[in-house]
Amino acid sequence: MTAMLVVKLGGSAGIDPALTLDDLAALWPEHRIVFIHGANAVLDEWMRRLGREPRLVTSSTGQVSRFTDRETMDLMLMVYAGLVNKRLVEGLQQRGINAVGLTAMDGRIASGPRKDVLRAIENGKPKVLRGDYAGSIEQVDTRLLDLLLDNGYLPVLTPPAVSDQGEAINVDGDKLAMQLAVALRAEALVILSNTPGLLRDVRDPASLIATIDVSDPASVEAAMTAAQGRMKKKVEAGCKAVQSGIGRVVFADARLPQPIQRALAGVGTVLTAGSRVEVRP
Amino acid sequence: MTAMLVVKLGGSAGIDPALTLDDLAALWPEHRIVFIHGANAVLDEWMRRLGREPRLVTSSTGQVSRFTDRETMDLMLMVYAGLVNKRLVEGLQQRGINAVGLTAMDGRIASGPRKDVLRAIENGKPKVLRGDYAGSIEQVDTRLLDLLLDNGYLPVLTPPAVSDQGEAINVDGDKLAMQLAVALRAEALVILSNTPGLLRDVRDPASLIATIDVSDPASVEAAMTAAQGRMKKKVEAGCKAVQSGIGRVVFADARLPQPIQRALAGVGTVLTAGSRVEVRP
Repeated sequence: MTAMLVVKLGGSAGIDPALTLDDLAALWPEHRIVFIHGANAVLDEWMRRLGREPRLVTSSTGQVSRFTDRETMDLMLMVYAGLVNKRLVEGLQQRGINAVGLTAMDGRIASGPRKDVLRAIENGKPKVLRGDYAGSIEQVDTRLLDLLLDNGYLPVLTPPAVSDQGEAINVDGDKLAMQLAVALRAEALVILSNTPGLLRDVRDPASLIATIDVSDPASVEAAMTAAQGRMKKKVEAGCKAVQSGIGRVVFADARLPQPIQRALAGVGTVLTAGSRVEVRP
Repeated sequence: MTAMLVVKLGGSAGIDPALTLDDLAALWPEHRIVFIHGANAVLDEWMRRLGREPRLVTSSTGQVSRFTDRETMDLMLMVYAGLVNKRLVEGLQQRGINAVGLTAMDGRIASGPRKDVLRAIENGKPKVLRGDYAGSIEQVDTRLLDLLLDNGYLPVLTPPAVSDQGEAINVDGDKLAMQLAVALRAEALVILSNTPGLLRDVRDPASLIATIDVSDPASVEAAMTAAQGRMKKKVEAGCKAVQSGIGRVVFADARLPQPIQRALAGVGTVLTAGSRVEVRP
């Protein structure tokens, strides 16, 4: 049987996507793969080039997110759906893979309510920001992805998603990957970024937490304590994926050759339910 | 039977796409529609915003085209595949249509050889420009489009296409529309732009050429004489479409309400084979 994999490539600085694309070419078409990507660093770069400072705000619940007004969404569409998505499609086409690039808005793959008001803390003071194009995913429709996979196309997917009113909304890429992995009943979810995995000390690669046992509250708590910044969201999403039936979630390093195969072999931080970690090369 | 239509919306200045989107919502899903668009004016605007003058060159055969080096292709992907394509998808989603935005590179919808050398005339002198990402379409694969249409998705398509080596290549949007209309055996091809149709005198809307009989060399010659600049390519593509079996090609005004239904009712320049113009509202 063909294993269903969801692979998410982060959009942080310092990642050469060619390594992941080469690995996709090695795994496709023997594996059924949905490839999801971000483009955070490239978006920041283009915003600065246009003289706009990226506006990251801390919500009242402590989460850091990008305030996405209408013009920022224009740029997000240009960078995520245009530049980065299509250059990845091009890279896959050059490797003989018939890729199809989409946002989660296309075919209403991921949808949910828009939250146009962002309650944030700026300079220590509560502030209400209006006009945010952001939201959370409540429905996932895998019909289009299944159609593509059944016909030999590799879907390359990126935010934004679509609101219940049909607007483009910024959603978290890791949560998108997690929710799609669950809906597609993926055998594994591989989340690649510019770190070797979850580190106890972000400055020390040797402090890697090799496993998280999602069924053990102490293991989850230790992981949540170690996770800083964006990694907190990844750990939360990863735990939720395993709780929802995904056999394995792996946080692994996108900067090494064969990053996906390496992750599937257990190199990185492996999240499973139960202490026995099943490793398949 | 559901009629297959190919609708192309030009990317010139002065066009509000909302009129075309409203009309698509009126015609869908009773008609099977592939929607193709350009983004020329928006690309020029962004190039200027980034301090780059669009480089239009005249080839040795007299055709005017955009020199597309690697950085211009980045911007083309951002504007065509990102900003314009996804805002059109959003507009259709807001009208209840489950649209899917694609470039002709995705799923190898349109492919052909890349021509990286452009022989141009600049300031009256012949010049060889290297590093052009442009090409011509030699193969059209409608499998992905049929799959989407069969499953209730409206495809929204834009250049670039893909080279035989898997590179993104700039191709003419009108030729893309024509070749897809032929491959999809469309009943009609509607080409909307910022003019009422083909005019004998571009300054006088009353000088509209209402019909071109593609089977009559004199009629075609008169049309080619009247056509200026980009309109020449449209007339050539339109004639080729009719010669290849498309019943009707209509050049019509994107700036009026119900532009597609108006075009199908015969308002604009109608190209057919034989003098009897079949008009269906």
